[in-house]
Amino acid sequence: MTVTSRHRVSTRGQGDVHDLTDAVAAAIRQAGLPDGLATVFVVGSTAGLTTMEFEPGAVADLGALFERLVPRRADYRHHLTWGDDNGSSHARAALVGPSISVPFEGGQLLLGTWQQIVLLEFDTRGRTREVVIQVRD
Amino acid sequence: MTVTSRHRVSTRGQGDVHDLTDAVAAAIRQAGLPDGLATVFVVGSTAGLTTMEFEPGAVADLGALFERLVPRRADYRHHLTWGDDNGSSHARAALVGPSISVPFEGGQLLLGTWQQIVLLEFDTRGRTREVVIQVRD
Amino acid sequence: MTVTSRHRVSTRGQGDVHDLTDAVAAAIRQAGLPDGLATVFVVGSTAGLTTMEFEPGAVADLGALFERLVPRRADYRHHLTWGDDNGSSHARAALVGPSISVPFEGGQLLLGTWQQIVLLEFDTRGRTREVVIQVRD
Repeated sequence: MTVTSRHRVSTRGQGDVHDLTDAVAAAIRQAGLPDGLATVFVVGSTAGLTTMEFEPGAVADLGALFERLVPRRADYRHHLTWGDDNGSSHARAALVGPSISVPFEGGQLLLGTWQQIVLLEFDTRGRTREVVIQVRD
Repeated sequence: MTVTSRHRVSTRGQGDVHDLTDAVAAAIRQAGLPDGLATVFVVGSTAGLTTMEFEPGAVADLGALFERLVPRRADYRHHLTWGDDNGSSHARAALVGPSISVPFEGGQLLLGTWQQIVLLEFDTRGRTREVVIQVRD
Repeated sequence: MTVTSRHRVSTRGQGDVHDLTDAVAAAIRQAGLPDGLATVFVVGSTAGLTTMEFEPGAVADLGALFERLVPRRADYRHHLTWGDDNGSSHARAALVGPSISVPFEGGQLLLGTWQQIVLLEFDTRGRTREVVIQVRD
């Protein structure tokens, strides 16, 4: 059995990180499946999904890391294509990837105590993000 | 129900990027499944899979980023193991990862308008890549 | 049919890499499933999963790369939160991600000859890692 649902998140632009763990846990509960796999996917090419300890220090560190590795204010060929300013967003998102799969048992995600499922917003402006959560036993 | 198929891609070496979206959509169509999950996996340790806006500017930006972060012409211990020249390829591929999962509904991949499934060739020479597409409802 | 199992690995801290391929192959064998998908997930926010050629040169190259991109001895805001020293571990783990999915057929993982499933330990101290292996047809 497979249940697919959507979750919408309003973001504030590059560096914004959202904890999706509760939304994924709710999708598992609503599907009524005890054991299985939750696959989470973010629609769009300027955001990413991963897990991390969702606390302000680690969030700031990750933002600083991306800014150092893939600076926002640099020359990107993508800017010439569309007159956009989000070349850094595209490169960061491709690096991190859009999907993650987390197993669950007894209705509980098998995450660590300090491990949350997070959406990384890389776009330079705020977006309404659509996250697809697919739960299967 | 699960249907596994293979897709072959001839690449031109490091920096070459291939859009696999049509191949994955075809696998879904051939499986005849309306809703489910497509998992795509690239065989080999010198290529990666992700999603991105597949346009020449963003492709060039991503190539420049990898060259800056993981330069091709640097000293790699892997070169001493095999007399190879593709240490940068291995490191880039491990960073990006070989698998991606994309949900679909009504026979359509739930990608963004500007989001394609892509194969990133990191090897220093052209390769015939085998991509495994596994579609399940 | 879905079979979930656990695999424990004792690590020696940052830079330690463990080949999980045999453990995943054993889980497939024990599940008795010929064809399907193996999803591997590492519990915790300071380790990652990917595939690579598991040989000492490539392992050393990857360690050197992470040390260059995300240095262990730098200032991390996460250190202020807990008095910890593993800010680099969190950032590296978020970049790589905790999950990977590998298809199998005829009981065999569809990996390349030189491609292994590996656990990357990023924490600054040795850990007992729990890896969840979920096999489905």
